[in-house]
Amino acid sequence: MNIIEVQGGVTAPQGFKAAGIHCGIRKNKEKLDLALLVSDRPCATAAVYTQNKVKGAPILVTQQNIADGYSQAMLCNSGNANTCNPNGVELAQACCELAAQSLGLKASDIVIASTGVIGQPLPLEPFAKGIPEITACLSRTGGTLAAQAIMTTDTHHKEFAVEFSLGGKTCRIGAMTKGSGMINPNMATMLTFITTDVAISPAMLNQALQAEVKQSLNQINVDGDTSTNDMATVMANGQAGNAEITQLNADYALFCDALHQVCVWACRQIAKDGEGATKLLECSVSNARSAQVGLAIAKSIISSDLFKAAMFGQDANWGRVLCAIGYTEGDFSIDKVELRLKSEKGEVLVCQNAAYFPFSEEEAAEVLSASEIQILVDMHDGEHFAQAWGCDLSYEYVRINGDYRS
Amino acid sequence: MNIIEVQGGVTAPQGFKAAGIHCGIRKNKEKLDLALLVSDRPCATAAVYTQNKVKGAPILVTQQNIADGYSQAMLCNSGNANTCNPNGVELAQACCELAAQSLGLKASDIVIASTGVIGQPLPLEPFAKGIPEITACLSRTGGTLAAQAIMTTDTHHKEFAVEFSLGGKTCRIGAMTKGSGMINPNMATMLTFITTDVAISPAMLNQALQAEVKQSLNQINVDGDTSTNDMATVMANGQAGNAEITQLNADYALFCDALHQVCVWACRQIAKDGEGATKLLECSVSNARSAQVGLAIAKSIISSDLFKAAMFGQDANWGRVLCAIGYTEGDFSIDKVELRLKSEKGEVLVCQNAAYFPFSEEEAAEVLSASEIQILVDMHDGEHFAQAWGCDLSYEYVRINGDYRS
Repeated sequence: MNIIEVQGGVTAPQGFKAAGIHCGIRKNKEKLDLALLVSDRPCATAAVYTQNKVKGAPILVTQQNIADGYSQAMLCNSGNANTCNPNGVELAQACCELAAQSLGLKASDIVIASTGVIGQPLPLEPFAKGIPEITACLSRTGGTLAAQAIMTTDTHHKEFAVEFSLGGKTCRIGAMTKGSGMINPNMATMLTFITTDVAISPAMLNQALQAEVKQSLNQINVDGDTSTNDMATVMANGQAGNAEITQLNADYALFCDALHQVCVWACRQIAKDGEGATKLLECSVSNARSAQVGLAIAKSIISSDLFKAAMFGQDANWGRVLCAIGYTEGDFSIDKVELRLKSEKGEVLVCQNAAYFPFSEEEAAEVLSASEIQILVDMHDGEHFAQAWGCDLSYEYVRINGDYRS
Repeated sequence: MNIIEVQGGVTAPQGFKAAGIHCGIRKNKEKLDLALLVSDRPCATAAVYTQNKVKGAPILVTQQNIADGYSQAMLCNSGNANTCNPNGVELAQACCELAAQSLGLKASDIVIASTGVIGQPLPLEPFAKGIPEITACLSRTGGTLAAQAIMTTDTHHKEFAVEFSLGGKTCRIGAMTKGSGMINPNMATMLTFITTDVAISPAMLNQALQAEVKQSLNQINVDGDTSTNDMATVMANGQAGNAEITQLNADYALFCDALHQVCVWACRQIAKDGEGATKLLECSVSNARSAQVGLAIAKSIISSDLFKAAMFGQDANWGRVLCAIGYTEGDFSIDKVELRLKSEKGEVLVCQNAAYFPFSEEEAAEVLSASEIQILVDMHDGEHFAQAWGCDLSYEYVRINGDYRS
């Protein structure tokens, strides 16, 4: 394999420093609530944002700041989403000004993000105090603390990095991500921040990210609710010294492969740590009529509450998978569907030609007792492959989201 | 009010008889599993079916049988959905033949429906034995037993009827419905059978039903899973003696009003008895830009798992409502949204101009402690009104759907 995993998260690529501190947005002083990520040089920058019509104020400010295709630093707080606040945009802009002053950059060089409760006033004071402090903490090994500072109800921090070679130059992509849950949950927010030292033009970086999210980050579902604050960014500072990628070529293809590996990692991590999740569900649809249909079917299956509850109960209720395929929009044939459930405990064929295939309930229950379940759907209807990631629906999900203020 | 509630369910209109028996499809002999509904005369008949690409065999047979716009009887079993069975269509046709013989009708006069587990063989024997038996039980007061026989995990049977006057003739519409759950649940299936003695042409009846389901039956959501067997039918036998409705006129409008009242009743009953539900959620969106946008917003809100879990927890988490409005597809403005929560315990304004409105958490918790919650959304963006019905997401939902075979 020419893409290998390495340590270091967002600070694995050359030229990136990061830090994470508690600045006072969250009440619990044990919890970090401010992350800062800075590159030595300007970065080609691409981003994707929530499709929700209610957008967090930081998203509006980030969109403006990276309109020129470049940024150099990223500031993210947890504990407050800065959404549905009348003065949210002004506050996000003021935070960018503070970060710019502290780092010797322009405010328009800053990517800003927030995650946490919505519709709650967010004071500037913690930022005014915290930004000089966090600037002093920046380090080449600070990726882990930054990954901790963007957590909300995530049960652990999430960082990852890969290494590969472009034209003899060692290149890296690093990432940190957070998933589903908040200390005072309003909605599950997905944030993914990716760094790389690959030299790539803003246009090609944007093309790579836009194509990638369709296959991975948009294929995660914990509870069907699209947050107001979802955001994924890639910052590429070119310090690996490879020939800048400015067109579709072999280097671009390899960069996309590495980016895909990083994003699939993020999907699996987020889904596995979904609110109340006891199992990761990874659905792979093969031989679909089109890529779009395959993606839609995979997402439909992992989004079905009935199927998610069945997985929690370790029940091979294949009818629910067929049902979810059946209500997927698009033009395709369902008559030849074949369905297998697989885990480290084994594999069982449960449905063939869209009808019941005699299987052992005991064997199926054993397969489903694992903590990662593969749902393998063969449509026999074309040659496209797609995946989606989700988690089971548990009592704990209801508890977290029903009882949190009582 | 010129539309009043009356007793009798599907047998309230003139000329309809019904019955419900146990014929042996369900193991538990205490549970009725076969319903039969017959009209003295041929009925103009309209139906709507699930949009799922996997359709229960009875749906395919019913579509053929009422292609001419008429039927005279309806046969429905519970306990087995007759879906994903290789010989399902032949079996459904054989049941229609049996019913036709027993009733002195043609097989193509029969509407057939099934609800229960999918992908399980369904033998003909219980029908061969049961159909003559149930024919002998038909009566003018049999609506209640028929309503019991179509139940699956419904906690109670559901029947309703209204009376109104067209040109001096007393007219009635009756209905029975079943909702979300099965004895061996695979998916929540909605069945609604409506009878009326109004004289109306098949074309106008179809127009009325198609328009009505968009406003009501398609606006229910228990868990987002569209069943393979959903079906709603209206059979109109004309025995009220009114001037036949053959065009858009005042009689048609009044008939549609009465039909709407019956269908809203069905929506409320189904949502309230959703699997594990402890609360009925009725969302009313006023001043939407278009009818379509209003319907989509209302459905988006009552479909949000995060909001449903908050309602279970009696938590006035208005951010989740805004979030669900925000990810609704369509072109509309969200800036002026106003949101109130209301029940028999009171009413509380929680959001104005899409931002937090200071409210008493205690007062809100009191409002949300009721068993029926109104979510009142004023978009201030047009003049259209729409509703949707759902239920909260409870521990019990997860238990029913996760543990049922263990």
